Amino acid sequence: MNVTIKDIAKEAGLSISAVSLVLNGKPCRLSAENKQKIIDIAKRHNYSANNVARSLATKKSNMMALIIPDIENVFFASLASRIEDSCRKDGYVLMISSSKDKYEEDLKLIRTAVSHGADGLFVIVSNESYLDNRELLKQFGKLPIPYVMIDRTYDDFACDQVSFINEQGAYEAVKHLLENGHRKIGCVSNHKAAANGLARLQGYRRALEEYGCEYKPEYVEQGDYYIDSGYAAADKLLQTDVTAVFVANDMMTVGFLKRLYQKGILVPKDFSLVSYDDSIVTYFPGVELTSVAQDPQLLGEQAYRLMKQRISGSKSAPEIVSLDPKLVVRNSVLPCIDQ
Amino acid sequence: MNVTIKDIAKEAGLSISAVSLVLNGKPCRLSAENKQKIIDIAKRHNYSANNVARSLATKKSNMMALIIPDIENVFFASLASRIEDSCRKDGYVLMISSSKDKYEEDLKLIRTAVSHGADGLFVIVSNESYLDNRELLKQFGKLPIPYVMIDRTYDDFACDQVSFINEQGAYEAVKHLLENGHRKIGCVSNHKAAANGLARLQGYRRALEEYGCEYKPEYVEQGDYYIDSGYAAADKLLQTDVTAVFVANDMMTVGFLKRLYQKGILVPKDFSLVSYDDSIVTYFPGVELTSVAQDPQLLGEQAYRLMKQRISGSKSAPEIVSLDPKLVVRNSVLPCIDQ
Repeated sequence: MNVTIKDIAKEAGLSISAVSLVLNGKPCRLSAENKQKIIDIAKRHNYSANNVARSLATKKSNMMALIIPDIENVFFASLASRIEDSCRKDGYVLMISSSKDKYEEDLKLIRTAVSHGADGLFVIVSNESYLDNRELLKQFGKLPIPYVMIDRTYDDFACDQVSFINEQGAYEAVKHLLENGHRKIGCVSNHKAAANGLARLQGYRRALEEYGCEYKPEYVEQGDYYIDSGYAAADKLLQTDVTAVFVANDMMTVGFLKRLYQKGILVPKDFSLVSYDDSIVTYFPGVELTSVAQDPQLLGEQAYRLMKQRISGSKSAPEIVSLDPKLVVRNSVLPCIDQ
Repeated sequence: MNVTIKDIAKEAGLSISAVSLVLNGKPCRLSAENKQKIIDIAKRHNYSANNVARSLATKKSNMMALIIPDIENVFFASLASRIEDSCRKDGYVLMISSSKDKYEEDLKLIRTAVSHGADGLFVIVSNESYLDNRELLKQFGKLPIPYVMIDRTYDDFACDQVSFINEQGAYEAVKHLLENGHRKIGCVSNHKAAANGLARLQGYRRALEEYGCEYKPEYVEQGDYYIDSGYAAADKLLQTDVTAVFVANDMMTVGFLKRLYQKGILVPKDFSLVSYDDSIVTYFPGVELTSVAQDPQLLGEQAYRLMKQRISGSKSAPEIVSLDPKLVVRNSVLPCIDQ
């Protein structure tokens, strides 16, 4: 069904090279009439549809790619939407693909984005990439297009990147619980698989230390940032004597709350909780969640700013942007008077 | 930074055409040694990254595109994830873009998908496309790749498509409220902008008629499938004497519930509600939402099946798949004893 330059040339009765020059917007000696003829035929056959060739010629595609770990994670969906807004303002289409937190998918999706002519690439890497990222770093090193790492970054890897300071966010969340008198504070973390998860656990520990509380491994449940792991963690932590919990992302909080409510335990009346991301408060009509906000608007804008610099040809050293998270206090924590 | 066939030829000391043949997997008279040399150089320079040229040669890209109206709508995110699963199993990468329910974006995103070499296109059209779809139909008619319309379809347009029967889903939702004794039933619809919204309103009306209830325009609030419109509709409907409401999608229910809870009105104790999509029940620990399920797994699988048929070269007439929605009864409706 695809019409080729050859077909157009034949129909116009002109040379292939002339058609190619006209359709790629390059100067050639044809009359205005013949130029128009070529354009009309191309339009009629929807030739603009087959712009792969043109992309080769101009090396600019007006498409950017974004790789996210999970499209069903409300925070990532919101972030994707904000990056899309920035792209759209400049006439770029954003193509989003999801790795399902698989390392092999990171590698494949990066190749796909490049091979389909993306002008730039935004990447939020998979959880798995924290276990072994050698191939990924090699691939980044060879990328022929600009790229920006967002949210999940590597400490020892210098590239354009933007993220919130995870240790600080967790510290403030847990400090809020401590200030309300809680001393037996659980944590649902993701410290084994994700660098930001480890940082959040470190923030939890720093706050405990500051208040002279012992760190108890049995108060910490390893999750994976997905709903089900929060649900399972609730089951475990409710067997301990914790009076409050810090949950290291909102999706796990969804599962955690589900389990609490099934057991008839209400927040904040019976149990205090602070979450992370502040992406789901609208979804909980009955719970006014206190959560650490990582403004997706700000994150998206900064990521796009870094991208624009590179697209414009900047050769400066990689820019590493660290943003301050902000604890949004609502009503999911009550003072603890038992201890 | 992009290495070209020319660069590789130069480095290998071989002709450009020989390099092109080898990299496109075509027969040529080179020695095995020289063939390997070309492949090694290409690999070293990450040449596979620039597959746009190869895509031109093979006319197959292993990428499919999906256009959704709103990435932050939980139902669409879930559907996208299911379609992605099907694609992945067959080695396709799915690139997702969002129209933000804008007609102009539909047109642009379709062009972009084609111009970046998608092998097939899944489309959930924008709300706006129901006001005037002439350009869109023209564009569909000329598409050089297979496409499947999902969820939002046009009655009078024959193409591969799959959707749930919206009138029936709404009918069963409202019938459930009527069976529980409710007679003053509000409706938050989207009948002016979306064909499936109109069908859902018709289902609401049919159920009312069947139970001998008068249709009252003041009980119907026009929303737009986004959270804020559900919130606003709650404000209006709470000024009437309705005892229950049918909300035509889950995102509007999120807003509706938010407003109810702000006013101290609890579901189902003080107010009964049936929603549509069944995509958010996990997010509401306090409310066991009764909702009309449109299984995204089934929808995604059927859409992919239609696509595969076309990709495999089927020239049969367009297939129109209508799926039965299913009311999932939980606990957001209590019997009405006032009327």
